Amino acid sequence: MTTIPDSHRDLLSGDVAVLATVGNDGRPQVSAVWFLAEEDTIAVSLNTTRQKTKNLQGNRAATLFILDRQNPYRYLELRGDADLQPDDDYTFADQVGAKYQSDLRAHDRPGDRRVKVVINPVKVNAVDMGG
Amino acid sequence: MTTIPDSHRDLLSGDVAVLATVGNDGRPQVSAVWFLAEEDTIAVSLNTTRQKTKNLQGNRAATLFILDRQNPYRYLELRGDADLQPDDDYTFADQVGAKYQSDLRAHDRPGDRRVKVVINPVKVNAVDMGG
Repeated sequence: MTTIPDSHRDLLSGDVAVLATVGNDGRPQVSAVWFLAEEDTIAVSLNTTRQKTKNLQGNRAATLFILDRQNPYRYLELRGDADLQPDDDYTFADQVGAKYQSDLRAHDRPGDRRVKVVINPVKVNAVDMGG
Repeated sequence: MTTIPDSHRDLLSGDVAVLATVGNDGRPQVSAVWFLAEEDTIAVSLNTTRQKTKNLQGNRAATLFILDRQNPYRYLELRGDADLQPDDDYTFADQVGAKYQSDLRAHDRPGDRRVKVVINPVKVNAVDMGG
């Protein structure tokens, strides 16, 4: 399955996703990220100085995990390949900023650059364990 | 840092952690798990038929991520090596069951086996981005 089922589509309007990448040392790195969903694709805006961005430059494998914070037994896992696109003019970063009512430039230092990271799912797991 | 700072120790009494392992295909697998914390070590009870257990048998790298569900800008990430110990008699599974008021046998099929997976941290990130 590479599409997101209707049962879990509400999670795409959630506020935080968990992004897992794999470092040079082979270990998963996991952090919370802002995201934007568009149909069955999810994209995040990353500063190129961050370790997770470097990880993705070396290894495109990326897994996004969105937890239902009201019911943590319900979640969506998207395993995919990350496609990194330059976002030097903050076009995408500003779209993310609009969702979160934040200017992403305020998180960056002068000279920092951003990329739009599109995660194209190769496997989607929609889990509901009750609880 | 391989210890959990006091600022984030409350997260160890949380109900759900996110476990990331790496599959044979090199992709991170991410799922929600029950856990028990003991000082700076976290352990989970896994059924040996599960893909995440097979991943750990092939590659010990494991990252546990605990989100503050009330404030998702605050979280704990523990990267470590998983040590898998047989738990055929459900000694550890019953300790986890006591925390969650659940009998883990009810999640298993006849003949299934369990392992206690102890994650020994090699790096701990305690994050608080405000928000």
